[in-house]
Amino acid sequence: MTRKIRMGMVGGGQGAFIGEVHRLAARLDGQIDLVCGAFSRDADNCKATGAALGLDPTRCYADYNAMMAGEAALPKDMRMDFVAIVTPNHVHFPVAKAALEAGFHVLSDKPATLNLKEAQTLRKIVKASGKSYGLTHTYLGYPLVNEARHIVESGGIGKVRKVYAEYIQGWLATEVDNKQADWRTDPARSGGSGCMGDIGTHAHNLAEFVTGKRMTHVAADLSIFVDGRRLDDDGSCLFRMEDGVKGTLSASQVCVGNENSLSIRVYGETGGLEWHQEEPNTLIRTYLDKPTEVLRAANGYLTQGGYRTPPGHPEGYIEAFANVYLDFADTIRSGAAASTGIDGGVRGMAFVEALLKSSNKNSKWVEIKA
Amino acid sequence: MTRKIRMGMVGGGQGAFIGEVHRLAARLDGQIDLVCGAFSRDADNCKATGAALGLDPTRCYADYNAMMAGEAALPKDMRMDFVAIVTPNHVHFPVAKAALEAGFHVLSDKPATLNLKEAQTLRKIVKASGKSYGLTHTYLGYPLVNEARHIVESGGIGKVRKVYAEYIQGWLATEVDNKQADWRTDPARSGGSGCMGDIGTHAHNLAEFVTGKRMTHVAADLSIFVDGRRLDDDGSCLFRMEDGVKGTLSASQVCVGNENSLSIRVYGETGGLEWHQEEPNTLIRTYLDKPTEVLRAANGYLTQGGYRTPPGHPEGYIEAFANVYLDFADTIRSGAAASTGIDGGVRGMAFVEALLKSSNKNSKWVEIKA
Amino acid sequence: MTRKIRMGMVGGGQGAFIGEVHRLAARLDGQIDLVCGAFSRDADNCKATGAALGLDPTRCYADYNAMMAGEAALPKDMRMDFVAIVTPNHVHFPVAKAALEAGFHVLSDKPATLNLKEAQTLRKIVKASGKSYGLTHTYLGYPLVNEARHIVESGGIGKVRKVYAEYIQGWLATEVDNKQADWRTDPARSGGSGCMGDIGTHAHNLAEFVTGKRMTHVAADLSIFVDGRRLDDDGSCLFRMEDGVKGTLSASQVCVGNENSLSIRVYGETGGLEWHQEEPNTLIRTYLDKPTEVLRAANGYLTQGGYRTPPGHPEGYIEAFANVYLDFADTIRSGAAASTGIDGGVRGMAFVEALLKSSNKNSKWVEIKA
Amino acid sequence: MTRKIRMGMVGGGQGAFIGEVHRLAARLDGQIDLVCGAFSRDADNCKATGAALGLDPTRCYADYNAMMAGEAALPKDMRMDFVAIVTPNHVHFPVAKAALEAGFHVLSDKPATLNLKEAQTLRKIVKASGKSYGLTHTYLGYPLVNEARHIVESGGIGKVRKVYAEYIQGWLATEVDNKQADWRTDPARSGGSGCMGDIGTHAHNLAEFVTGKRMTHVAADLSIFVDGRRLDDDGSCLFRMEDGVKGTLSASQVCVGNENSLSIRVYGETGGLEWHQEEPNTLIRTYLDKPTEVLRAANGYLTQGGYRTPPGHPEGYIEAFANVYLDFADTIRSGAAASTGIDGGVRGMAFVEALLKSSNKNSKWVEIKA
Repeated sequence: MTRKIRMGMVGGGQGAFIGEVHRLAARLDGQIDLVCGAFSRDADNCKATGAALGLDPTRCYADYNAMMAGEAALPKDMRMDFVAIVTPNHVHFPVAKAALEAGFHVLSDKPATLNLKEAQTLRKIVKASGKSYGLTHTYLGYPLVNEARHIVESGGIGKVRKVYAEYIQGWLATEVDNKQADWRTDPARSGGSGCMGDIGTHAHNLAEFVTGKRMTHVAADLSIFVDGRRLDDDGSCLFRMEDGVKGTLSASQVCVGNENSLSIRVYGETGGLEWHQEEPNTLIRTYLDKPTEVLRAANGYLTQGGYRTPPGHPEGYIEAFANVYLDFADTIRSGAAASTGIDGGVRGMAFVEALLKSSNKNSKWVEIKA
Repeated sequence: MTRKIRMGMVGGGQGAFIGEVHRLAARLDGQIDLVCGAFSRDADNCKATGAALGLDPTRCYADYNAMMAGEAALPKDMRMDFVAIVTPNHVHFPVAKAALEAGFHVLSDKPATLNLKEAQTLRKIVKASGKSYGLTHTYLGYPLVNEARHIVESGGIGKVRKVYAEYIQGWLATEVDNKQADWRTDPARSGGSGCMGDIGTHAHNLAEFVTGKRMTHVAADLSIFVDGRRLDDDGSCLFRMEDGVKGTLSASQVCVGNENSLSIRVYGETGGLEWHQEEPNTLIRTYLDKPTEVLRAANGYLTQGGYRTPPGHPEGYIEAFANVYLDFADTIRSGAAASTGIDGGVRGMAFVEALLKSSNKNSKWVEIKA
Repeated sequence: MTRKIRMGMVGGGQGAFIGEVHRLAARLDGQIDLVCGAFSRDADNCKATGAALGLDPTRCYADYNAMMAGEAALPKDMRMDFVAIVTPNHVHFPVAKAALEAGFHVLSDKPATLNLKEAQTLRKIVKASGKSYGLTHTYLGYPLVNEARHIVESGGIGKVRKVYAEYIQGWLATEVDNKQADWRTDPARSGGSGCMGDIGTHAHNLAEFVTGKRMTHVAADLSIFVDGRRLDDDGSCLFRMEDGVKGTLSASQVCVGNENSLSIRVYGETGGLEWHQEEPNTLIRTYLDKPTEVLRAANGYLTQGGYRTPPGHPEGYIEAFANVYLDFADTIRSGAAASTGIDGGVRGMAFVEALLKSSNKNSKWVEIKA
Repeated sequence: MTRKIRMGMVGGGQGAFIGEVHRLAARLDGQIDLVCGAFSRDADNCKATGAALGLDPTRCYADYNAMMAGEAALPKDMRMDFVAIVTPNHVHFPVAKAALEAGFHVLSDKPATLNLKEAQTLRKIVKASGKSYGLTHTYLGYPLVNEARHIVESGGIGKVRKVYAEYIQGWLATEVDNKQADWRTDPARSGGSGCMGDIGTHAHNLAEFVTGKRMTHVAADLSIFVDGRRLDDDGSCLFRMEDGVKGTLSASQVCVGNENSLSIRVYGETGGLEWHQEEPNTLIRTYLDKPTEVLRAANGYLTQGGYRTPPGHPEGYIEAFANVYLDFADTIRSGAAASTGIDGGVRGMAFVEALLKSSNKNSKWVEIKA
């Protein structure tokens, strides 16, 4: 059988959101076992979380440093293979650093770090470590996103011209007082950007992935619409990519009634593609002189795989997330040090910094320097 | 922590479809452990499947009788709690019988049995056993289906008048030669009906669940459209339910281009509801004098739960299936003998038999006698 | 220039609905002039309607007999060419008869008559008259409906197997007290059927038109859901067509929240088509092994015309209705006696009578004898 | 009866597109008569067009100056009331000037003029003339656009924050060689902008209309994607409006597969609205804590009118256009000099000039000075 990969987790104590999602994703395909965790700085929460998950209490650690030390001391065939980092943003960097330096692979929630400088430092650490570093850009785990990339790559829409990327939510349209909203709107824990750092980066990442082009410049206008908020809760930018591609990217958390509306539209000389995260099993494909096609997940006419069920059995966010975990498990097994994750992480942070700089300079064009 | 429930599986060897889906569903929430299996009559397949799943080889049994005996011989805190039956239809009954009589709970793929007579016999066995018997009517696992039921139950659409239920596929529009198609079109393994037994029963079950009414009569017209096929691959019926509800139900496997299009529309005196399995996170609600509402999964305005992620993070088929498993695990833990599953199973078989009888009698109205 | 066709109208006085729609449709393309009318039995209404329309007061007639006589007495190049009948159903027959016998072409709102017997009589009158008789089956005026028919006719979906036809409304879900509802629920003015006569006939007509097949048998279940109503406000039937085609047809006026939801889905051996009246500029086309296509109005890849504007400029109900008028004007100009209208009219009435008979005989199959 | 309004037309000879659309729109409701025209500089075309329309040949004029003179010489109750200008852009100004100075009202296709300077001059002429000047911003003729405006105006979505406006087409994705494409891509006839002038102005106009706010600044990036084209065929801008509203606006003619995809989304503190021109009978309305509503044309729960048919009978582009004509006819009858049209026209030209200036200055923010 395929060797099961052992995971440790930092963050994700009871009451957190994304940690549980990571666990669902890691668990789904039965190829990854959660073996230890430093789930919370609150020792009781940490223990309770571990107990609820059926973990060995001795492997529920007080903090991430203890976890690195404790696991490193275990026999090789027992200790964790990688650390999943699911903390608020400001903790991503120190945990990743500690894990890599202790010889563990890292799969981190995005963004990679709190800011670009940290990300660049982390890149050096990753490269020096020889370990794999992955970033959970969940939305790339949707198979039709991969299909879209391959259609573009194989010339299916011709030379790319224009991209529209959006990530629109409404949950922060008013003052929100909960754990999720809390740290996301706190510069110390979230970084220099709120909305753009949290979700704009997904749209950026998706645009680069599907087109296969790097975004080079942005002219941005970030906003804080809710009184008293300290970080942007909305923003739009014009952007330019390599090879003359142009586009717009909008992210917002104050567009009332929008849930998690990430979408991308890409148009080339001979065709176009459109995909919406909230209806992820459909990919719209357009042509110059033919009817628009509705490509649907898991059908035989697709060229890419990644489906667990036949057409018409909707797969969603957790399956996409699980695909990211499956890929990372494969990477670990293969022994290859896949460091592309950190490159994408640096690019994401560079994108955010360029946005902030542009917005502060009255929307002047700013180069994205990763 | 919540006690993990131990599952044994009959069927689901490598190459099967639904067995793997059951495993994904059982695994997702980390509350159920697969501990043993009789995955295939082919011993090599059985062993290979168990190995790939990381099972103890001594608990990969040659057949289901061996499994019942072997598990019964294990210490109580080790042996399986329940048997998941994921074989072709004709094996559902004997395995369920053997499991129940050996003192194990049963969670069976639908239909419950090959025919009504078997189902009625099984009902007696279940009731005598004091064990839980569940049927994986997957689509009831979608939380918005449950929401719909509660809206109807609480009078949200007034007295129900008319129901449209459909389950339309296209995958058998031509002669299909594979493992899935094979047994589904073979009367000996599938039962007296092909399309209606396989998918029409889901539509029937959904109609009864959402309305809270029992279907009492059908006037059916079943068809075999593909030459050489031995079981219906399409059918429609008029139906009547308790309390004057009327409706139509169509199921087909020859409607080219349809994937897995299960849907229900229910109209009452003051409102209506519409739900489509392929877009399961949306429930349409209509009113007499107000705009139609789009109810979306996981929002605060809903009255029912069952979501793992916030609004806009699509949950799909596997999550719905996992909800069925979660419910069954809860039932086992609670110690209550929940035998409603078999009642629904008998009703499903009675529905199919009534359809066959009606269609054979030139669409005469036939009573559904469960 | 193309000769303008002169129209007289019976019915359609102020306060009526469908008369005004006929006038909009007749007027749109500037090829038809309304020259006279007997708009209402209420003389004041008749005069006021004529005045508002700018008609010569001497050509606003007290009743339809006066109109036939008055117009016949005018010079040939001045008198009306045809009579548009826009009255409640029970007046369709006598007006059509009077017009044809007076030498005028007739374009009648549907249904052709109050019952089958009248329709058969009218057929004889039409054939004897040598005049054109058209029926405003508005929905056939949508160009994509015509496109669908041509796709089927040219083998684009293979041999037809299954049809789903629906016409679902909600406006009569409660007791409604207005002019429109009034006569539609009165047997003396509407005929033996309410819902099926009013809208079910459109679905029947659409099914026959798109498939090119005649419906031969129905097994129907008609209902009256609103207390005190005297005619069916809902119904469904199983049906059979020539050449082994099967289907279901539902019509309802009590499905709360539905507006004017006429739709058809047709599946053949190699493909399918789906069209919805409320989104009439889109035609869905399915294939065995290719992505579903979205055919959109007015594009170059279509084979049929009938559009006034380029793609993406929605044309709707009035344009479809105007297409019916344009066709009728062409027929008149061509001099050909196009009597197909009455054949369709007879078929529609025969369909309704078969439904009533079947529903009265407990949904027994009844042949449609036109 | 309501007095019929008499229309003369400049432009719209056979082979033109928009002239025929104007005629359909003017004709639909029977309140406007086309009485004369200077349809083409090609005398034969002019005569042939007039003849096909059934006009008096003496009122088919050689050019617009002759038309102004000829009509002014006719008796008051016979001469045209207003001139519809349906020529390429560069002729809008001289014709409007001539008409107004000859004492005729003007209804002009947009844009008002070739450039801002002309528009400002025209504004003076309009104000001095005492005549009505209208601009056919067709999309404002859709009743649900008006409904949206009223919802915003009455506080239905709270203080407006963010606007997304788009007008995306694909018909110029390759070199196109026809009459429509020709003048639209020629600076001398179309003005300084291609895509933005032709369709971006509609999006601008829609955004201002629905929000009731003026756009004050833009930061734009216009592009020419097709080799050899002389005017922008694509562009996006960030924008700011009065009272802190922000937004993005994109227009393109090279997004393959898009037909005429004009849309607007507006979000305020407590709600949002979304409308798409290609599905104009639906308006989406969102709330903070309630399900999204689907407002549908012509329903009783709406506060604004403008419908010709009941719910579910799609009204489209021609009906919207006809509403613009109806409004203009009412204005003329009322005797009021409604000069708001020219103000909007100046604003549109100022928007385009600001876009061009911004795009030339590397997307710097530029104020819109009308």
